[in-house]
Amino acid sequence: MEKRALLYEGKAKKLYETDVENTLWVEYKDDATAFNGEKKEVLVGKGKLNNEISSLLFQKLHEEGINNHFVDRLSETEQAVKKTTIVPLEVVVRNIVAGSLHRRTGIEEGTEVDRPVVEFYYKDDELGDPLINDDHIRLLQAASPVQVKDMKQVAEHVNETLKKHFSDHGLLLVDFKIEFGTTEDGKLLLSDEISPDTCRLWDKETRQKFDKDLFRYGIGSLQEGYTEILQRLGGAAHG
Amino acid sequence: MEKRALLYEGKAKKLYETDVENTLWVEYKDDATAFNGEKKEVLVGKGKLNNEISSLLFQKLHEEGINNHFVDRLSETEQAVKKTTIVPLEVVVRNIVAGSLHRRTGIEEGTEVDRPVVEFYYKDDELGDPLINDDHIRLLQAASPVQVKDMKQVAEHVNETLKKHFSDHGLLLVDFKIEFGTTEDGKLLLSDEISPDTCRLWDKETRQKFDKDLFRYGIGSLQEGYTEILQRLGGAAHG
Repeated sequence: MEKRALLYEGKAKKLYETDVENTLWVEYKDDATAFNGEKKEVLVGKGKLNNEISSLLFQKLHEEGINNHFVDRLSETEQAVKKTTIVPLEVVVRNIVAGSLHRRTGIEEGTEVDRPVVEFYYKDDELGDPLINDDHIRLLQAASPVQVKDMKQVAEHVNETLKKHFSDHGLLLVDFKIEFGTTEDGKLLLSDEISPDTCRLWDKETRQKFDKDLFRYGIGSLQEGYTEILQRLGGAAHG
Repeated sequence: MEKRALLYEGKAKKLYETDVENTLWVEYKDDATAFNGEKKEVLVGKGKLNNEISSLLFQKLHEEGINNHFVDRLSETEQAVKKTTIVPLEVVVRNIVAGSLHRRTGIEEGTEVDRPVVEFYYKDDELGDPLINDDHIRLLQAASPVQVKDMKQVAEHVNETLKKHFSDHGLLLVDFKIEFGTTEDGKLLLSDEISPDTCRLWDKETRQKFDKDLFRYGIGSLQEGYTEILQRLGGAAHG
């Protein structure tokens, strides 16, 4: 496969066209951003860690029958993925209260949630990626009601699968964000990345944080946290 | 009926016990507040205008078969209402984009919405009354799923009824907020107030604003706007 023109550069990844139909080339960057881009740093090794972790997790989801855009790991920092048109929504699933769920509800951080909480955020940097409800999604024509229902179902399935997978490796899946795209034939497909940039992951016993909150709140080395996650998932041999 | 002890004082109203079972005495105050209490003023006559308008609207809803807590108008500034335990949610219905719906979605103010947008906000001053979704409502145990469904249905019925009623009097119902309580026997009942404090109302032709935005954004006399609404609703003779 051949890398072609740059299609899109986001905060954490670059997307390139390829010579293979409906296939894109993803490059994970070392850039770390938080608070809608207000905090920004280059953290050498982050791209590699996220690429390795995301590859492992997407493969795991494939094994469990959850379709996603991942095709192949190409290098330490690169993946091949199926081409999709991104749905402008972030779907967040929460098992334990943290971050904005604490700020929104006043419920103490660390409180376990009876049934997972699913949230939709509108992907719009200028608006600050606001929380929206099903009526807002309809108004914005961000997704159809059927797509919303499907995204919720897939999100819950991903949650059950990854919660167990992380737990088997001594990690608590506190919450995570996923994104979807639509393929050329109009099908919804789990896309983007699943990594410590997009998941909160705590040690199951000590509740030590290993995810992007280390960078977000300046409470530890992001690379050390992400390396711990990669090693626990059994992916340390890569690269 | 006899007024007894003060039960609760809110930003715009005082609630008293009475000697009649399950009946409360409401006194509308002249206090105007906005932006979660940051802006505050006493506007003489506001309490009377809101009491008159709210009485007319609750009566109208009764006539249209929509149960609500209104029992009787007692004086220029007072009402008798059924006693309820308030559900800690604000239910907002929107027909035209304005205010926070514009800020949340980026859609231009004044854009008409195809189907009404319904929103739930968690009544908590400290948290700034945040927007929440159905999963947050469940997590907070603010209402049961059945109550949420019922509140949405009543809210949409109120919207259809009042939209037509205001339109018949030359006014556009842009959006409004309602609150519910539960009665002693556990039934959901439309409560609180419906007034230009809780509705956005524009002139149908010129789109001139007659509601609390006059005070909120300092763009005109609140009392003049509310008087215009009361007169159009045919309630000018009161008091």
